[in-house]
Amino acid sequence: MTLRIAILGAGRIGQVHARAVGGNPQAKLVAVMDLYDAAAQALAEGYGAEVRSIDAIEAASDVDAVIICTPTDTHADLIERFAKTGKAIFCEKPVDLSAARVRACLETVSETDAKLMIGFNRRFDPHFGALKAAIDSGEIGDVEQVTITSRDPGLPPHEYIGVSGGIFRDMTIHDFDMARFLLSEEIVQVYATASALVDPSIRELGDYDTATVVLTTASGKQATILNSRRATYGYDQRIEVLGSKGMVQAENQRPVSIEVATADGYTRPPLHDFFMTRYVDAYAAELNAFISALNSGEPMSPDGRDGLDALRLADAALQSAKTGQAVALL
Amino acid sequence: MTLRIAILGAGRIGQVHARAVGGNPQAKLVAVMDLYDAAAQALAEGYGAEVRSIDAIEAASDVDAVIICTPTDTHADLIERFAKTGKAIFCEKPVDLSAARVRACLETVSETDAKLMIGFNRRFDPHFGALKAAIDSGEIGDVEQVTITSRDPGLPPHEYIGVSGGIFRDMTIHDFDMARFLLSEEIVQVYATASALVDPSIRELGDYDTATVVLTTASGKQATILNSRRATYGYDQRIEVLGSKGMVQAENQRPVSIEVATADGYTRPPLHDFFMTRYVDAYAAELNAFISALNSGEPMSPDGRDGLDALRLADAALQSAKTGQAVALL
Amino acid sequence: MTLRIAILGAGRIGQVHARAVGGNPQAKLVAVMDLYDAAAQALAEGYGAEVRSIDAIEAASDVDAVIICTPTDTHADLIERFAKTGKAIFCEKPVDLSAARVRACLETVSETDAKLMIGFNRRFDPHFGALKAAIDSGEIGDVEQVTITSRDPGLPPHEYIGVSGGIFRDMTIHDFDMARFLLSEEIVQVYATASALVDPSIRELGDYDTATVVLTTASGKQATILNSRRATYGYDQRIEVLGSKGMVQAENQRPVSIEVATADGYTRPPLHDFFMTRYVDAYAAELNAFISALNSGEPMSPDGRDGLDALRLADAALQSAKTGQAVALL
Amino acid sequence: MTLRIAILGAGRIGQVHARAVGGNPQAKLVAVMDLYDAAAQALAEGYGAEVRSIDAIEAASDVDAVIICTPTDTHADLIERFAKTGKAIFCEKPVDLSAARVRACLETVSETDAKLMIGFNRRFDPHFGALKAAIDSGEIGDVEQVTITSRDPGLPPHEYIGVSGGIFRDMTIHDFDMARFLLSEEIVQVYATASALVDPSIRELGDYDTATVVLTTASGKQATILNSRRATYGYDQRIEVLGSKGMVQAENQRPVSIEVATADGYTRPPLHDFFMTRYVDAYAAELNAFISALNSGEPMSPDGRDGLDALRLADAALQSAKTGQAVALL
Repeated sequence: MTLRIAILGAGRIGQVHARAVGGNPQAKLVAVMDLYDAAAQALAEGYGAEVRSIDAIEAASDVDAVIICTPTDTHADLIERFAKTGKAIFCEKPVDLSAARVRACLETVSETDAKLMIGFNRRFDPHFGALKAAIDSGEIGDVEQVTITSRDPGLPPHEYIGVSGGIFRDMTIHDFDMARFLLSEEIVQVYATASALVDPSIRELGDYDTATVVLTTASGKQATILNSRRATYGYDQRIEVLGSKGMVQAENQRPVSIEVATADGYTRPPLHDFFMTRYVDAYAAELNAFISALNSGEPMSPDGRDGLDALRLADAALQSAKTGQAVALL
Repeated sequence: MTLRIAILGAGRIGQVHARAVGGNPQAKLVAVMDLYDAAAQALAEGYGAEVRSIDAIEAASDVDAVIICTPTDTHADLIERFAKTGKAIFCEKPVDLSAARVRACLETVSETDAKLMIGFNRRFDPHFGALKAAIDSGEIGDVEQVTITSRDPGLPPHEYIGVSGGIFRDMTIHDFDMARFLLSEEIVQVYATASALVDPSIRELGDYDTATVVLTTASGKQATILNSRRATYGYDQRIEVLGSKGMVQAENQRPVSIEVATADGYTRPPLHDFFMTRYVDAYAAELNAFISALNSGEPMSPDGRDGLDALRLADAALQSAKTGQAVALL
Repeated sequence: MTLRIAILGAGRIGQVHARAVGGNPQAKLVAVMDLYDAAAQALAEGYGAEVRSIDAIEAASDVDAVIICTPTDTHADLIERFAKTGKAIFCEKPVDLSAARVRACLETVSETDAKLMIGFNRRFDPHFGALKAAIDSGEIGDVEQVTITSRDPGLPPHEYIGVSGGIFRDMTIHDFDMARFLLSEEIVQVYATASALVDPSIRELGDYDTATVVLTTASGKQATILNSRRATYGYDQRIEVLGSKGMVQAENQRPVSIEVATADGYTRPPLHDFFMTRYVDAYAAELNAFISALNSGEPMSPDGRDGLDALRLADAALQSAKTGQAVALL
Repeated sequence: MTLRIAILGAGRIGQVHARAVGGNPQAKLVAVMDLYDAAAQALAEGYGAEVRSIDAIEAASDVDAVIICTPTDTHADLIERFAKTGKAIFCEKPVDLSAARVRACLETVSETDAKLMIGFNRRFDPHFGALKAAIDSGEIGDVEQVTITSRDPGLPPHEYIGVSGGIFRDMTIHDFDMARFLLSEEIVQVYATASALVDPSIRELGDYDTATVVLTTASGKQATILNSRRATYGYDQRIEVLGSKGMVQAENQRPVSIEVATADGYTRPPLHDFFMTRYVDAYAAELNAFISALNSGEPMSPDGRDGLDALRLADAALQSAKTGQAVALL
């Protein structure tokens, strides 16, 4: 059975999801909504869908699921609204910048028994998936140290930084989710050191561009996250996990794998320079997982609780970076 | 403008092309033909196309181009037939196992001014494309030695070997085309040594499974092709080019790039095990090139002449392997 | 002019230095001292040197320099003793486990104007040296994030852990020195999380076997150290430095660089399994640097102050690991 | 027991061997001979040896073995002369440029029961040794295709080319020996194509600078050798062996293994640029093998017969390159 989907928000990430829907034989894009009508129109046309209002989508009998790609401050409201319609919901992270608001929203989700999946796309990257499978297979024994290197190619616009909730809630949040995913154990302590080395004016916005975060679990497992807003060599996305029996690493990805050797040395091209090319397979697999869970009736994963837990780690990291002290999680 | 396409032959390679058409916004699959009706039906359904007879496709006004994926011995006839209809033609290699038959076919193509592209998909692989671009940029200077490693994961069925024209015409032909593409100079001498090391019974079929071929150009540039029908570690597809200023290498591809380190060492997964996963991007880019050439009116590349030249090298290699002597090309 | 050297302590690290002296045309091993006479004898014989008492070495006119390889608790005394003789001193790290004792010892060194070099051998590793040179060349711009992965192949004997001063003073101390070397800026904050995951009984000895340490400089540069006492895949010694213009990495070393590809994947051998094979070139280069500094009259580097500063970082890390709080350095 | 050695010829390769002797506790350099006295003096002094005449070395009772590093045209005479003295002989390749002269020389060796080892140093490289061990272990099954890439960093002086016997006898001869070593089976056919692409004037000297050679064994195993006199990126020395169960590769070596990533890509330094740094470990291991064989009484390997067989392949390759035809070996 084909899943009939409406996309709310026709911006960059909405386009990513539309492409995934278009390429998936089990899904069909039915409707697109965006406050900016031309954007909605352009996206809808490309996939044979209609432009509709939120109200129309809410009322539609030919829409089984919504993909929420609107600005962050609308996510919680939209989740609550569509939870009550019985439509399945896929929502981009984060649910909200306030943990309290997220909790309230998840209560509605729980009361309405709504299906909600949160867009932590990296869990579905084939390389990170193979790394997780290697852990689960027991090959490397018990997990002891996780290292996540996660660096953006360049700074986002200052306007974005103003509304993003800061580096920990906007960028590191993916890494918090990944750390939780790989550690499979409660995190009890968070330490972060952060600075504005790339662009000092970011400090004036109350944010950072360079951060190192250490997470410790109850049994003493450790995870380190290395963030920077600027990696001149591309979108640096690596994971390494040390276990009692060995180590597994997921390497960086580049568009083409050639190497040129001259008197100056051996040179490979830079990495992908954009999350959309780097994670194109992950977005496709994420949609598949959403559809599979709906078809099978199994629980969504990652779900709203995963979204909340990643946000709590982000809040703790921010507190730690500000105070210079580690933060205990209760 | 959308290119309306009919696919002749709904087997494995026909399915590959159908997927590329389905994923291309500038193309649309209109009709499918196969002697085995269920196969045609299955393929047509997946892409919203109709099953039609050859005659119907020939006469159709809603078909702009045909993609020929039928058995090799029908290629030349079909090219001639569709050349006369004015439809653009994409034909899988080889045009025919007989160079004389290919020549005759290309005369018809020439007389009818038909658009004909030959399916040497590897030219469109992004990695090999980047390697070619590195050569063309002058980075490595003048090409001196080309090394093409091209090994299949495993033996094809014996029935296939019986009708394939042998390893040089069926497998090495891709490498001959690649050598020509990279050398950009007339080849004047061909030497091949070949044996049946994987399966001695292949020798009884008059064929080989392990071959080394050396090509020399007029100015003394050298190209080596290393073939085997069995690489236990996957589909081994590498190219290396030495030039006067440096070297460029295109590395192998694997589905996931993780590495597991234990007391036994550092292990990465095997390579792709199938040409369809290894070259999925190449097939998509190949179709784009076909469409671009039709839209721009520029000459097709690779064209029928490229098909013929690769076949001539295959014939020379076979003669060399049989006689133990190098063969001069006039 | 050949430097005439006495080695104090004929154990494992004494043997390493003897080999370096033996292979260096500018140095000659003259005398060996060890409480265990047979060890002294064996080492002396291999390099044409004599066994002598400490007193004899102290009084010797044919000894220009001593290399101190005795147990840690004798280092400071021996440094002071030989400082007064005017002989040049090379001392294995650490000078002492107590920072106060180190300070007192360095005062004597200062008063006597003695030449003292401390054995942070990794500064002289050719790979780490090339990494440092890349930083100094400006290629990667300003240093922003340093990541040092430093994992031993296996646990040392429990007796050693009892007297070593613990993981931070015995193992991480090399990494603290390296971080200082690469950051080239005062460290103002230290955070460490540590646990006994490899062997819980190490916890009972008051020590850890798995640790993550984060250092922050005054300007906000960050360094992370990842330690484990057990890396099944070998002696894991990597450094990565992110800068404003790029990144530089020094990769792991293995005895042989072959790769075997089978149906199970591509496998390279494990890393070196011992510091003596991994750092054989570093020890040779370290001795060269000692000799060069003596010949040129330039200051020793690393010197006693470097030894003290690394120890202070170790002490701070230990305090942080115990309290769960970051430690500010004045 | 220490092996007392005289080195004949104090040029570049003589110095390489002197260093290996100096660093080997089981060997001692006793005497050095060179027509150019200052060279002999310099080498002797560095290792505490004496300068002596050939006659004195021949008559010396304190010399157990000679290492012959004189010009090629003196090798056979010197081997014969020292064979009669009962001293063990290590001779640099080749024994002579004439196969007939080599055969005559080996007869003398045989009649006198002299111990003769030929300097094919690459057999003793630890990486190639590990590759050979992987083959011998059965990991990759039966050998099917060997590929040896062997490219020099730059052209030798024209004077050397004039007396070297040409690329096949001077450079490829190492690769012929390696191919024989790895194939472990009689070679029955040789094909070579060669040209002067680096420097056309080399053609006027009757030589080539770029060559591809293919060897076939009786059972159909294939070996390919890729030679160039100019690899701008360093001394390119790789071996790959395909077997029935897998493949093994020995990778190139570089002095330092760092990688710098910038907006221009990821760059590793060039390879070693000289055989003396690339093969320093091989020369040391080669000497060890010579000493071991003398001590154990086991046959020398590689011996004079190996030297002759490599030369026969070189002669056949030259004939093939000149005639354009494959050459059958009887």
